[in-house]
Amino acid sequence: MPNPIRFYFDFASPYAYFASTSIEGLAQEFGRTVEWRPILLWAVFKTHGIAPPMDLALRRDYLLHDMVRSAAFFDVPYRTPEKLTLSSHLAARLFYATLQTDADKAVTFARRVFTAFFVEGRDIAQEDVLRALAIEAGIAAEAAAEDMKAGRPLLERAVNDAIADKVVGSPFFLVDGEGFFGADRLPQLRWHLGRA
Amino acid sequence: MPNPIRFYFDFASPYAYFASTSIEGLAQEFGRTVEWRPILLWAVFKTHGIAPPMDLALRRDYLLHDMVRSAAFFDVPYRTPEKLTLSSHLAARLFYATLQTDADKAVTFARRVFTAFFVEGRDIAQEDVLRALAIEAGIAAEAAAEDMKAGRPLLERAVNDAIADKVVGSPFFLVDGEGFFGADRLPQLRWHLGRA
Repeated sequence: MPNPIRFYFDFASPYAYFASTSIEGLAQEFGRTVEWRPILLWAVFKTHGIAPPMDLALRRDYLLHDMVRSAAFFDVPYRTPEKLTLSSHLAARLFYATLQTDADKAVTFARRVFTAFFVEGRDIAQEDVLRALAIEAGIAAEAAAEDMKAGRPLLERAVNDAIADKVVGSPFFLVDGEGFFGADRLPQLRWHLGRA
Repeated sequence: MPNPIRFYFDFASPYAYFASTSIEGLAQEFGRTVEWRPILLWAVFKTHGIAPPMDLALRRDYLLHDMVRSAAFFDVPYRTPEKLTLSSHLAARLFYATLQTDADKAVTFARRVFTAFFVEGRDIAQEDVLRALAIEAGIAAEAAAEDMKAGRPLLERAVNDAIADKVVGSPFFLVDGEGFFGADRLPQLRWHLGRA
């Protein structure tokens, strides 16, 4: 069996959302599976002493425009969220708690969170919003509420894994020991898979 | 006449070198010309209070590997320079002084500098190296020595233009008011030119 592609991302990252729409298809072409690994990018950055790119006015302006243009380029629906920078820890915890029993359901939930945030303009830092999205993904309401607490140590472990795997941003793809940062590295990831 | 593509770059930027090998062909496909504009990225970053990405160990390690892999991906010869971070002001001054009288010769010189630094491992911060490269590009030896001084105000103006044009890194392409940062934005630049 060829190695899976580990897909590190932050739920609040537009470029992760763009990449999420094509990574499964790309993996399947080459007989690979995808391990979805939501993390808290701010926690990874804090460990390394990296300033978030959106903190710098010049970069922020460029990125806000580039995100809209990139969505059109990737042909993916996108609306800039009102509050683009938020902590995605509750969504990530719910994901990991679900992942323990049902990987497909966890990924369905992850996709639902992306669409809610980047297309529907919903606030994915809110518990009630996440509970509603979880139910749509087939997760029981009581489980969802509990999972947002229970997933905490699982998310902490994922963040530590990301630090160990030298994640430098979101999205970050790790396969065969090679790390690829950014939605714009998907063509290079494809090229790698074709040669492997 | 369609607008030209302004190509901002630092002579010490590997990604600028990669992009330099294909930007002219890409522009020609769409009836555009390219304005080569070497700048000092450190000067632009300093103005904005941006830390150079190579200053952070994590990013540096990622980038050093990504540069080698990207060269293979773009199918461009590349050898990591011994001293990757250097001030390219002499090369840029010589470029601008030449540009005043002969644009083709200036671009020939720019390409020669890229190859010297990223393929032949030569130190392009050294006056004697630059003088030799200038002569190979058809620039008279006396002119080359003089140009490294005379080009100073021209380079200063170019750096100020880059700041005004909101350059966020190298390479940076500006066309029709749209800025594209990175060699990995060439597919998106192509897409833009095709729609324009």
